[in-house]
Amino acid sequence: MDTYIAADIGGTQLRVSVYPVDGTNPLFQKRIPTRGKGTPTERLLGLISDAWPKEGKVLSIGAAFPGPIDPFAGIIISAPNIKGWENLPIRQILRDRFQVPVAVGNDANLAAVAEWRFGAGRGHHNLVYLTISTGIGGGVIVEDQLLLGVRGLAAELGHVTVWPDGPLCGCGLHGHLESVGSGTGLANYFNEQVAKGRPTSVPADPIPTSKEISKAADAGDELAVEAMGRAGYFVGIGIANYLLTFNPSIVVLGGGVSRSGPAFYDPLRKSMMEHILRPEYAENLVLTTAQLGDDVGLLGALVLARTVGGE
Amino acid sequence: MDTYIAADIGGTQLRVSVYPVDGTNPLFQKRIPTRGKGTPTERLLGLISDAWPKEGKVLSIGAAFPGPIDPFAGIIISAPNIKGWENLPIRQILRDRFQVPVAVGNDANLAAVAEWRFGAGRGHHNLVYLTISTGIGGGVIVEDQLLLGVRGLAAELGHVTVWPDGPLCGCGLHGHLESVGSGTGLANYFNEQVAKGRPTSVPADPIPTSKEISKAADAGDELAVEAMGRAGYFVGIGIANYLLTFNPSIVVLGGGVSRSGPAFYDPLRKSMMEHILRPEYAENLVLTTAQLGDDVGLLGALVLARTVGGE
Repeated sequence: MDTYIAADIGGTQLRVSVYPVDGTNPLFQKRIPTRGKGTPTERLLGLISDAWPKEGKVLSIGAAFPGPIDPFAGIIISAPNIKGWENLPIRQILRDRFQVPVAVGNDANLAAVAEWRFGAGRGHHNLVYLTISTGIGGGVIVEDQLLLGVRGLAAELGHVTVWPDGPLCGCGLHGHLESVGSGTGLANYFNEQVAKGRPTSVPADPIPTSKEISKAADAGDELAVEAMGRAGYFVGIGIANYLLTFNPSIVVLGGGVSRSGPAFYDPLRKSMMEHILRPEYAENLVLTTAQLGDDVGLLGALVLARTVGGE
Repeated sequence: MDTYIAADIGGTQLRVSVYPVDGTNPLFQKRIPTRGKGTPTERLLGLISDAWPKEGKVLSIGAAFPGPIDPFAGIIISAPNIKGWENLPIRQILRDRFQVPVAVGNDANLAAVAEWRFGAGRGHHNLVYLTISTGIGGGVIVEDQLLLGVRGLAAELGHVTVWPDGPLCGCGLHGHLESVGSGTGLANYFNEQVAKGRPTSVPADPIPTSKEISKAADAGDELAVEAMGRAGYFVGIGIANYLLTFNPSIVVLGGGVSRSGPAFYDPLRKSMMEHILRPEYAENLVLTTAQLGDDVGLLGALVLARTVGGE
């Protein structure tokens, strides 16, 4: 049986799936920690070798990488949390080793593709996807095409400036959407307020995560509600900006923070509506959460594999 | 001789050109004030009638309108400064009257198309256009296609929020790029500072325009330099955001403020570089001014006419 191999590379885990030519149910899946014996590149090559089907032909490999990658040149520009991956010609490395066509892309971009093809965005032609977890990543479908730009670096939607005087972002700049709207951003705010002596029901040790803060907000903790609402407010501004920019028919939110409750979503919707120029941008707009869960990167990589490994 | 008719509708002027099938040199041009005898719609219909060639066939009409327009439905949603144009089925009105195919679009979008096809953006496939004058409008070319979105309302690039606490925008919301980066925004800031007693060489009466402030900045007036620099700083943030969002190979700046000097452009470039995530976004980037001058809207409307009035 002919197959496609999809890989999803993260700072914590490397994952691989083998898919049949005409389906999205994996024939085989395996995951290993990104860090361990050998370099991350060796570990990735080893994982794909382990997954390689004993029978049939592998038509191609699709792979999703965190951080900026040039999908045209097949080069990882850099990868947060993966040491040594700077200007790495990963497509050539995979091609040389496995002798099949290889396509590579940014994981948030590919998550957008997967949600559009298989998940919440089916049937839409213009989609904005935001993944809100430790950071904020993005992917955009414009008229049934993934928005890539001249070097494939488009849709870096977490690092647009929404507040020039805002807090430091993980990238070293200030006031990015990620710095105020991500799980890290909201936990930072929460913990700063705790350090200032604000009362909360959330235990201070170990330092609360955004998930714990979200749970406390659901239970009515006032400071947690405030922190979730502040993040929702800024994500609402970000979404409003992307409605004005792309005029999509659907916005899909993925990542851990997207599973928050009304303490996040009520201020988000209010802020979104307050920041759009006119109501038409929200008319018939679907604002929804991602459907594909943990496999979203693998499924995006599968779509990519299909583009280079036709029957 | 077969021809196309292009119209460019503004709050101040209505303009029309007759173009040959295979060129961009107008065979005939006429402009009239938007306000005068009759409604704006009657004036527009009259102007096109006046321009109608006595001989040959008019293949189609393309028309550029200010403000939000649904190019798919052919409906003007609203038009700033043109009374009574709310939900106006302008395409149907023009079709009924002239019995030729008609295509309509937003003027900033069509200016982007014109600069891409005939002006500063020739040869580029991914272009961001900003017109910076009284307001800020935008147009984006993605892989040789005009970005429209689901209702044609995309690329409203002047009304993205870049500073939530920022000043009031012409649209009634706060902190939009237009409110701090446009000619109006910079003149407002300048005049507020004057009202606070800040010294300047610019006469206070009549209230200085952005053009006068720009000239004073060229001559070294300290407050004028500051006002131009502040606008440049925010436009630099806006451009950085659009580099991250679209990763274009060229950014074209049009409109009166784009003809400013280093007091505007030096802070703009500095701010742009400071607000991009990584240098790759600016590598090989062309940042330039528009080439087509006052005819840019007409030429964009011509491109549109060509799409519906094929030979």
